[in-house]
Amino acid sequence: MNYPSNIIKRTKQAVSYGNRGMDLEHCLNESNVFYEEENRALIYKKPTPIGVVDVHYSSRGKVIDKAYFKSPSTLDYNGLYRGKYIEFEAKETKHGTSFPLSNIHPHQIRHIQKVLDHGGIVFLVVKIQSNVYLLDGQVFLDFIQSSKRQSIPYSYFLEKGHKIVEKINPPLDYLSVVDKIYFGGML
Amino acid sequence: MNYPSNIIKRTKQAVSYGNRGMDLEHCLNESNVFYEEENRALIYKKPTPIGVVDVHYSSRGKVIDKAYFKSPSTLDYNGLYRGKYIEFEAKETKHGTSFPLSNIHPHQIRHIQKVLDHGGIVFLVVKIQSNVYLLDGQVFLDFIQSSKRQSIPYSYFLEKGHKIVEKINPPLDYLSVVDKIYFGGML
Repeated sequence: MNYPSNIIKRTKQAVSYGNRGMDLEHCLNESNVFYEEENRALIYKKPTPIGVVDVHYSSRGKVIDKAYFKSPSTLDYNGLYRGKYIEFEAKETKHGTSFPLSNIHPHQIRHIQKVLDHGGIVFLVVKIQSNVYLLDGQVFLDFIQSSKRQSIPYSYFLEKGHKIVEKINPPLDYLSVVDKIYFGGML
Repeated sequence: MNYPSNIIKRTKQAVSYGNRGMDLEHCLNESNVFYEEENRALIYKKPTPIGVVDVHYSSRGKVIDKAYFKSPSTLDYNGLYRGKYIEFEAKETKHGTSFPLSNIHPHQIRHIQKVLDHGGIVFLVVKIQSNVYLLDGQVFLDFIQSSKRQSIPYSYFLEKGHKIVEKINPPLDYLSVVDKIYFGGML
């Protein structure tokens, strides 16, 4: 078919059927709302810490006039599931066939070790090659300790990660994977 | 003694010996740093959630030009202690002999119930009459359910609360109280 030159033909983006247009963070936030409404878990994204420089007071309360984002020393999400402490970081690798370790700050890596030491559940949720994987915190640390690579190859997620199924509701049913790994004796 | 009228006599504020000038939040933050350094617990104050209205990009990153503080739906602090999920709210009542319930938002009250339902440890840390008390979440809900009062009288803290000792380091050793209440069979 010939298109007139003044009409731009939109190319279709590859999208996952269930959650078109939703990025990883949005999917996880929606899932957490679903889990809370279903009385299954209490898991929240922590607000990004900010440093407030200037404020003024208006009739509707304190208004921030200047602030900057601080880099977090813990992970994105934490909460309570089946009586256990749970914490995880979510990262999306849109292009590329490996997950750059630079995505996780050194103090976050130390934090993962601390959560393990104190008996918490800790993992990464990584979207790579249009798939979403849960990678256990200890398995992540094992990679760092045993490899000199600056990125985790996709094959490591295939081998050691656990695929999270995308659904309508919750958009990302990661707690079903948590059930299997941390409550079902798979690890 | 007669003071010249142009000299304002400063009245001394009642301060606790160990932590003069430190407010409750500062004492708790310092205590949490101490606990983490001692490898005893991982407990953090959540950043206050903000709604960002405007940003611009500078050479040093994203700068917030306008934002406002949102009201939190969870409690101030959460973390991991002895393998358990822990969450609490800290409030200071500087004047008065009772703790106004208006200090705790209705969605925070519902949140306390949810943490209990999911098997977490949840409580309030309240500074009242220059003393700091830990009030267990269930004991707090019991008061709300059984009383029509709009504030918790000091006597309730004396009777049902647990006094937290102020020290040099940590400034507020609340985990010793947590040990007794939640790990020692006192409740």
